Amino acid sequence: MKAEIIAVGSEMLTPYRQDTNSLYLTEKLNGIGVTVAFKTVVGDRRKDLVNAIQTALGRIDILILMGGLGPTEDDLTREAAAEALSLTLCRDATQVAALHARAATWRISMPQNNLKQADVLQGATLLSNPHGSAPGQWLDMTFGGYRKLVMLLPGPPHECGPLFDAECLPRLREIVPPRFIAVRTLKAAMIPESQADKLLAPIYTTYADVETSLLAHTGDLQITLVCSKANAAAARERVDELAERIEETLEDWLYSSQGDSLEQIVLYYLGLRQATLAVAESCTGGLIAQRITSVPGASRSFLGGVVAYSDELKASLAGVPAELIAQHGAVSAEVAKALAQGIRARTGATLGLGVTGIAGPAGATESKPLGLVHVAVCDAQGAGTVERTFRGDRNRVREWAAQQALDLVRRRLM
Amino acid sequence: MKAEIIAVGSEMLTPYRQDTNSLYLTEKLNGIGVTVAFKTVVGDRRKDLVNAIQTALGRIDILILMGGLGPTEDDLTREAAAEALSLTLCRDATQVAALHARAATWRISMPQNNLKQADVLQGATLLSNPHGSAPGQWLDMTFGGYRKLVMLLPGPPHECGPLFDAECLPRLREIVPPRFIAVRTLKAAMIPESQADKLLAPIYTTYADVETSLLAHTGDLQITLVCSKANAAAARERVDELAERIEETLEDWLYSSQGDSLEQIVLYYLGLRQATLAVAESCTGGLIAQRITSVPGASRSFLGGVVAYSDELKASLAGVPAELIAQHGAVSAEVAKALAQGIRARTGATLGLGVTGIAGPAGATESKPLGLVHVAVCDAQGAGTVERTFRGDRNRVREWAAQQALDLVRRRLM
Repeated sequence: MKAEIIAVGSEMLTPYRQDTNSLYLTEKLNGIGVTVAFKTVVGDRRKDLVNAIQTALGRIDILILMGGLGPTEDDLTREAAAEALSLTLCRDATQVAALHARAATWRISMPQNNLKQADVLQGATLLSNPHGSAPGQWLDMTFGGYRKLVMLLPGPPHECGPLFDAECLPRLREIVPPRFIAVRTLKAAMIPESQADKLLAPIYTTYADVETSLLAHTGDLQITLVCSKANAAAARERVDELAERIEETLEDWLYSSQGDSLEQIVLYYLGLRQATLAVAESCTGGLIAQRITSVPGASRSFLGGVVAYSDELKASLAGVPAELIAQHGAVSAEVAKALAQGIRARTGATLGLGVTGIAGPAGATESKPLGLVHVAVCDAQGAGTVERTFRGDRNRVREWAAQQALDLVRRRLM
Repeated sequence: MKAEIIAVGSEMLTPYRQDTNSLYLTEKLNGIGVTVAFKTVVGDRRKDLVNAIQTALGRIDILILMGGLGPTEDDLTREAAAEALSLTLCRDATQVAALHARAATWRISMPQNNLKQADVLQGATLLSNPHGSAPGQWLDMTFGGYRKLVMLLPGPPHECGPLFDAECLPRLREIVPPRFIAVRTLKAAMIPESQADKLLAPIYTTYADVETSLLAHTGDLQITLVCSKANAAAARERVDELAERIEETLEDWLYSSQGDSLEQIVLYYLGLRQATLAVAESCTGGLIAQRITSVPGASRSFLGGVVAYSDELKASLAGVPAELIAQHGAVSAEVAKALAQGIRARTGATLGLGVTGIAGPAGATESKPLGLVHVAVCDAQGAGTVERTFRGDRNRVREWAAQQALDLVRRRLM
């Protein structure tokens, strides 16, 4: 069966915003054997929306509309769908009560326009949205003589994804003919994409039945293997076989063969070694701590750290001797090492991590170019340092530096 | 005039790749007064492509097709356009010669299928592509009784953008009636979207000639105003007038009327007051420091801070008395205040910021629910605190908390 995803919202027709929900939904749809044949972005204009909906139903079986379900003037998806499908909209009494109850919990008075979120397409099932006020809608209908499945989903990603998983996927699985798809995601750190492809292409091109894709982003390489077969075990076997060959080839560049993030892997190894980590960041400015603490349960192994942005704070918070900065400069292997050792001593962590660099746009000198980064990790046995010069703007250099730092910790723990 | 951009390529219908060219083209089109009304992604299937092209020409004036101009089997844009527009394809002799010459320069033999890149739509002008082998095409035609402009552009971004700028923009400028577009972006913090819309809808709906869009994300509200007129001053005037009314209405919820980020505004006020800031983060785990240091030049006003994730580090790094934690718990107004005061004292910053909360999934108790966050800011005059309970998963709570914290600093500095 073929699907079309329509993202609704004028902001996605500006140069500044893009639909990202459709990537998530595509993955889930592919997982049950549904191909996405078209993606459309349309603005908050009723006429355009009606046109987009009718066009979609003329060319596909499954239509997913995202966005435009909120309470404001420019939320028009319900009205446009009703017009395009020649259905009436009915205000659902239970939903009205739920909206009132929700407003009461929040102790706010409910604006009248909020009630349009209780309008339901004739024949549609409401899909409960635990993360927002606008429910989704599911419609199994006949249009132009053919069976069509139409879903209305809220636009915010944290509402759209969970609602689709909980309410739409199970319904689709009952209707879509079963197919078995095996997926594996392998991840590697700090290997150049071209080098990875040179190593891996001779292998994965011999697996024509496994769809292999490489996606690289600031030192993080994601390799996705997808195989679809009539038999679940056969699909699994092909993917696992290719995964094993990739693991052997990438050796210790590879940090996960199950799709985990680098910060998850670092925390996993810390737990395994019953070790703790503390960080002293300069150029990354909190990015490393932020990545680690984004993982639930990080507090078991991550103590915390300092963002020592100024030279004074490198001394006062992380105990870097002022003379060392005067002698070698704040961006030096010596200062990175002192940051790592200082934070380790002050926190009592098993491992200390220190990062210093020139993220730009200012700060470069003749001997210290933009993008120069020093990373150091230390434990009771001593310290290891890495020097790299990364290309790109301020945020790219910071992302590269954080990735390099986490990878250095991983390699120390391996 | 209204445009549609069609991105051609099956890889953009997978979970791993997105069209990005359209953002660039949208900016350029908006710049000459052309609105993008639809964006479509279609795979390398001839039937789908024909459908997408015909659909587009039924609803817009300007159609830009990107991709599918290469030499391979699945490059079908030329053939599909010919079918959709009922035009013949002619092989251009000059272009054939150019392809042969290009192959000779590269000292490669030219595969026969390369020649399809010399196929030109009847009536089209070839657009030279200095960065690749496939030329673009420009067609000024009548379709269904209306004048339509159709462009075929290569897909790779480094070919698409320059070719559009050099060959399409000048041609469009001659045809499109001159329009001037004025844009203003206003931003507000921590105001609920429905409340903002209730306040603003009665105002912006009276400005029918200004397109107003509200976009909310974890406590950050972006209001974009776009007005297109034949006269630049008139467009500017309408947008500025509406912006002024929104400014008056949102009062101090509004933090920028020029599209700056909240962290940029905090740094701006710090600079203005010749003040410095240091932060002590618990639940946000470095997110606040990371946001502030993402702004170039942050080091002028931001000293740094600590990520005090464990109770021990709250004491050792930020000087929070252990008794205070024992008495009130780590997530309390008292500890938030002690974090702010502690980091201020240790760093000598003008302002100290402290954040503590329960980001989840674990850590909630009966009296302290998931999402509870205490934020404190202090200076020489004393401290101010805010208590909020945010909803959502771990990352949402962290984002809300960081936004609330930055907003508290902004309000202190105002």
